[in-house]
Amino acid sequence: MTALTLDAAQTILSAALAAAAEKGFKPLAVALVDARGALKAFAAQDGTSLKRGEIALGKANGALALGLGSRAIARMAVERPHFIAAATQAVGGSLVPVPGGVLVREATGELVGAVGVSGDTSDNDETAAVAGIRAAGLTPDTGEG
Amino acid sequence: MTALTLDAAQTILSAALAAAAEKGFKPLAVALVDARGALKAFAAQDGTSLKRGEIALGKANGALALGLGSRAIARMAVERPHFIAAATQAVGGSLVPVPGGVLVREATGELVGAVGVSGDTSDNDETAAVAGIRAAGLTPDTGEG
Amino acid sequence: MTALTLDAAQTILSAALAAAAEKGFKPLAVALVDARGALKAFAAQDGTSLKRGEIALGKANGALALGLGSRAIARMAVERPHFIAAATQAVGGSLVPVPGGVLVREATGELVGAVGVSGDTSDNDETAAVAGIRAAGLTPDTGEG
Amino acid sequence: MTALTLDAAQTILSAALAAAAEKGFKPLAVALVDARGALKAFAAQDGTSLKRGEIALGKANGALALGLGSRAIARMAVERPHFIAAATQAVGGSLVPVPGGVLVREATGELVGAVGVSGDTSDNDETAAVAGIRAAGLTPDTGEG
Repeated sequence: MTALTLDAAQTILSAALAAAAEKGFKPLAVALVDARGALKAFAAQDGTSLKRGEIALGKANGALALGLGSRAIARMAVERPHFIAAATQAVGGSLVPVPGGVLVREATGELVGAVGVSGDTSDNDETAAVAGIRAAGLTPDTGEG
Repeated sequence: MTALTLDAAQTILSAALAAAAEKGFKPLAVALVDARGALKAFAAQDGTSLKRGEIALGKANGALALGLGSRAIARMAVERPHFIAAATQAVGGSLVPVPGGVLVREATGELVGAVGVSGDTSDNDETAAVAGIRAAGLTPDTGEG
Repeated sequence: MTALTLDAAQTILSAALAAAAEKGFKPLAVALVDARGALKAFAAQDGTSLKRGEIALGKANGALALGLGSRAIARMAVERPHFIAAATQAVGGSLVPVPGGVLVREATGELVGAVGVSGDTSDNDETAAVAGIRAAGLTPDTGEG
Repeated sequence: MTALTLDAAQTILSAALAAAAEKGFKPLAVALVDARGALKAFAAQDGTSLKRGEIALGKANGALALGLGSRAIARMAVERPHFIAAATQAVGGSLVPVPGGVLVREATGELVGAVGVSGDTSDNDETAAVAGIRAAGLTPDTGEG
């Protein structure tokens, strides 16, 4: 089992923020938790709202909690809202069921952490997360289809 | 009052996990609470996600909280979502209203505990719980219509 | 990095409970969390009090939170009680600073989880935990001086 | 009012971690909150324990909560433990009253945020925080005498 290093985590963060800047996104908060759910790295761009970070963390934590990219969790939230509402409470409250929470996997498929991004549209948040993960040579799992 | 023994609890757990393995389910978390709501036994199979156990516990706790198998609670969640949402908060947050939370009864009907399973589909989670309870010579109450 | 398997976890549990029975301990609750802090296995012997399990979990979670066997945390609680009190709140409340919370390490020293035991004296709780861990061929780290 | 920029925050983080590495400290978690108490940047070095980040955040949040470097809060914890215990609950639980929580000020004295460090001794945690803040051309306020 591989642990996500701080170097890799900070590469993911920088690349996510660089992609966002290049595409002219609104200010983003980016959170990276390791496979234990412990916060590994975090950055909130200048101009982010007071609790933007908590939303980003909710996307990362929720994805890790259920073992699904948040795009899949978003589908569940539409199909079985009562389940997602209850699951959010059962896991302690930090689960945000919209795109932008992306699992980080090794090429083998092994799960090493999750990225959560918030600040622009959910789709754009996810785009930044994916760019960051790929820049670190890791595999993003968005929960797509 | 008959108390659920650890021997019976561990039989339920083993049999539930064995049924799941035989049927090729995804990795499961199985929680067994006694009639007081105290955790009696628990096992998380290798490969379960970070908070899979909390979801399983939510099914067991929710069933015990309302005295109903969670298949019945799932029907309530669809028919009266505002009630289930409020009940979840009133009981402290651990109530997951989908199948997989099964009350454990003696042949007399006496309630001795609840099993909660999560990790595959809700229907399959329930199947594993039922198999476990029956293997211990006890009676499963799923909340089926 | 090695993950603690359910087989190993259940061996630890069984051996801990067997050692306790052999030594005539009071009924114990034994909790095993993996390196992520996720509950892996749990058993409460017949006759344990209502919240005995939460105490056992607090010893395991506290040891993992600080990366120290709880015998070391107990010394900190005596020398710097304000720190331990605050740390308990900072980590979410599940930190019990007395012996009985033992880190589980591979022979390499790699941390794979933590055991928490409660029900007899703290020293005896720790004895049961150590017996369990050794029976699984793993290395106990009690936080001893 | 001057806001702490992400550039400055990341300079503080990098310099704190570099100072720690140079001095051979144990792995550290470093948290930086802005004047609003919103998390601005965070990094956990490889090898930090599961909840090390929460301890670091508790030092930063506590310093900002009371407007005092945590060395001063540590003195209060010894002289008036009942006050610090109560204050910790009143502020929501994230207040760790030992050195390592350092306020970040402009040269004018204006408060722009707080750094919290945990992982080595409290004195060394504080040393790393101070090094980071100075590297960004800002003024550290440790709560010293």
